[in-house]
Amino acid sequence: MYNSSSDRIVSALRERIAAASAGAQLPSTRQLVAEFEASPVTVQKALRTLIGQGVIESRPGVGTFVRAIRTARPNDYGWQTAALGSPQHRIPDSSSALRTTPNDVIALHSGYPDKELLPERLVRAAFTRAARSEAVVSRPPTAGLPELQSWFASELGTITPAGVTSPVASDVVVLPGSQSGLSTLFRTLVGAGRPLLIESPSYWGAMLAAAQVGVQLIPIPSGPRGPNPDDLDRAFAQTGARAFYAQPNFTNPTGGQWSAELGDTVLGIVREHGAFLIEDDWAHDFGITANSVPLAAREDSGHVVYLRSLTKSVSPSVRVAGLVARGPARDRILADTGAQAMYVSAALQAVALDVVTQPAWHTHLRSVRQQLKSRRDMLVTALREYAPSTHLEAVPHGGLNLWLRLPDETNLHQLTRDCEAQGVIIAAGDDWFPAEPAGRYLRLNYSGPNPGAFANAGRIIGEALDAQQPSQRPVVNQPTASAPS
Amino acid sequence: MYNSSSDRIVSALRERIAAASAGAQLPSTRQLVAEFEASPVTVQKALRTLIGQGVIESRPGVGTFVRAIRTARPNDYGWQTAALGSPQHRIPDSSSALRTTPNDVIALHSGYPDKELLPERLVRAAFTRAARSEAVVSRPPTAGLPELQSWFASELGTITPAGVTSPVASDVVVLPGSQSGLSTLFRTLVGAGRPLLIESPSYWGAMLAAAQVGVQLIPIPSGPRGPNPDDLDRAFAQTGARAFYAQPNFTNPTGGQWSAELGDTVLGIVREHGAFLIEDDWAHDFGITANSVPLAAREDSGHVVYLRSLTKSVSPSVRVAGLVARGPARDRILADTGAQAMYVSAALQAVALDVVTQPAWHTHLRSVRQQLKSRRDMLVTALREYAPSTHLEAVPHGGLNLWLRLPDETNLHQLTRDCEAQGVIIAAGDDWFPAEPAGRYLRLNYSGPNPGAFANAGRIIGEALDAQQPSQRPVVNQPTASAPS
Repeated sequence: MYNSSSDRIVSALRERIAAASAGAQLPSTRQLVAEFEASPVTVQKALRTLIGQGVIESRPGVGTFVRAIRTARPNDYGWQTAALGSPQHRIPDSSSALRTTPNDVIALHSGYPDKELLPERLVRAAFTRAARSEAVVSRPPTAGLPELQSWFASELGTITPAGVTSPVASDVVVLPGSQSGLSTLFRTLVGAGRPLLIESPSYWGAMLAAAQVGVQLIPIPSGPRGPNPDDLDRAFAQTGARAFYAQPNFTNPTGGQWSAELGDTVLGIVREHGAFLIEDDWAHDFGITANSVPLAAREDSGHVVYLRSLTKSVSPSVRVAGLVARGPARDRILADTGAQAMYVSAALQAVALDVVTQPAWHTHLRSVRQQLKSRRDMLVTALREYAPSTHLEAVPHGGLNLWLRLPDETNLHQLTRDCEAQGVIIAAGDDWFPAEPAGRYLRLNYSGPNPGAFANAGRIIGEALDAQQPSQRPVVNQPTASAPS
Repeated sequence: MYNSSSDRIVSALRERIAAASAGAQLPSTRQLVAEFEASPVTVQKALRTLIGQGVIESRPGVGTFVRAIRTARPNDYGWQTAALGSPQHRIPDSSSALRTTPNDVIALHSGYPDKELLPERLVRAAFTRAARSEAVVSRPPTAGLPELQSWFASELGTITPAGVTSPVASDVVVLPGSQSGLSTLFRTLVGAGRPLLIESPSYWGAMLAAAQVGVQLIPIPSGPRGPNPDDLDRAFAQTGARAFYAQPNFTNPTGGQWSAELGDTVLGIVREHGAFLIEDDWAHDFGITANSVPLAAREDSGHVVYLRSLTKSVSPSVRVAGLVARGPARDRILADTGAQAMYVSAALQAVALDVVTQPAWHTHLRSVRQQLKSRRDMLVTALREYAPSTHLEAVPHGGLNLWLRLPDETNLHQLTRDCEAQGVIIAAGDDWFPAEPAGRYLRLNYSGPNPGAFANAGRIIGEALDAQQPSQRPVVNQPTASAPS
């Protein structure tokens, strides 16, 4: 393998190449075999080394040539097209909800709450404490810090009714954010090519994870009051699906919350079909005029797999989520998260636990509730006043979003562009539909910066909508039918 | 959907159930239809709600029964077996290298360096500074903090030879640890069911990620001097593989380092086959008597995708890795990491950047080099003295591990158990083989706690091996052939 005769050929050819001009052809392998009195294998090895060093290049069927070396040449990555082929699953572009924007605009598109809604003081104090703790230099178990597992379990335990067994710490898997939890759940409970029932509209991040895994999405029409149980029952029966992804509390984007009766009915259907309910309790900490009541607290036979993230309520920098699952499903989930990420930073877990176990955490949550209420109401008022052609099916009892129906003839692309030109960033509702949109919608997030400008944003949206309605457009400079004089 | 007549049936039946004994049968749907003067759909809805509430259960073909409620009953998760089915890809148990152990043992099994080899003071200071920065309450771009991207690119840039274009910041994707990078790379560059060439033995975490993704591993025999290029060339030709996962510097587990010539030859083969080299530079910061020289620095046409983690050299709590890729491959990788994790905690990225840009970082790395040298030599000396039946093919020039060949007749399971009984935790080499092990090996990590005990560990391993050789066992209490008197 370390062939000195190959080395000899390499160095002889390098000298010759250094003196040659770019593009000059090298002698054939046969000529080189004769010249160096070496075997064809040895010559081939030497040429391969020179190709590897980037000094020559081989054009199959033509010959070997001195490579032109330019330090700033444009690279040709065309070969990658063949190597990569078509993707097994096509991942859509990230949603506009992830866009970062300059500070001077009114941003209603984002999925992340503004800094003023974060427990910033608690987070900073927790990082400072963590800096002095063992957490910053240690490695936690794959399933998570036991104390944080306990906390996630106890949060469900406190609302578990009598007669139902509460989850325990070992039912919890700590994850680096709920997005990776969605990927893991779709991989382990569904699998590539298999059907997953999903509310429509639903969270675009879930659809992104579904695309990554390659599961087949089966949309179940849903709205502020949740899905129709008969649709769900039929979809399970027709597709053989074994899982339903849903957000029973403060659904993103509609803001809906299922009634207790609907929750029980859905649990009944899920049980009947021997299936999983993947419950995404993303807005657990964002109740406004109601509390999130997870179905996971009412079910102890392993049919509900529960996901709760702290990223939005603690800090976007604290990428920590808890997943609660029971039975063999939990084992399979843990094996997947282990293979995907090994474990979650102990420092981030310690910070998360520190923040949510401070007495000030509950004070903070009460203050967030008040702020969200006032932000929501300001935006609702502005839309009612300035955008009367829009329709809000329901004012949400929690969460961060309004789901605004627009007139059917609205040109959404034009609308978002017009609003942006006026400094208001909005997200077209299309991203939240797993299939064709059922109508023209905007998802307006009222947790962004600068709520004082919400009234102005409502006015700008209303004006941009009005500008699309020809009948209401003021008639200006109408040309006369007669020829100019 | 919110059917008051269904509500009425639910509450009437609940009263009746409360008075009934567990297991009592309910009237048939037909009888209930008659009794409540409701439609079968309404009755079915009411029963479903009661099933959801857990007060009754349906036995298909038999009837509906009052459910026994016990607060501490063992749950029956048997239904999950049907719902989950066989896994699409079976993920092996985590390696013994992830085990955590009590402090009073000599742990040679772990993959993680002891705290005394970490830049603990720098890490704590960086966390303290981060606690006061915007990083702890902000969300970074999906590809990473631009300054950290630049740092990863410049690390390769400083060793890029003239004539080769250096990578730039936008070629870098920051990841939550290299494990998630391996998953992403195997998903995007290979894909489920497709072949991936891999050195044998190789890193078990890569095999874990491969199992998660479901790629087909094609082992290429390798050792302290790297793979045989002819084997590699043949495997590419025979399997049509488009990617080769390798660790050219300080291979885990063998400690091998490829010669510059072998690197060039491998690059030549990879180019010839229009393929990717997935270069895992896991031990970049752990050179001892040599430096890691990544092939990625010598290749600018997108054939090398490079992975470098800071988890082992900065802190296990700083789950941050950099991935360098060029061309369309980079776009596909970024889409996958976005769908998997959205982004990496800005706080962890800020901490990582802070640590590696301190002048004290280089002082620290020099001190680690000295310590690793002395630890490595102590363990090598002890093994040579106390375990002469073992064979070390090469003393590694970097990395954290010795790869120790044992006599072929060794019972590995017995050996690890015997050593553990004496307080020495060792990892059987089998975990590092993608197929059947090519021999009996131990991977001994010399970066664990308590290097003062390495001599003792060598003695214990030697004694446990001796105990397995019948010829050397002292003959005690040999029974006589004659019957006892």
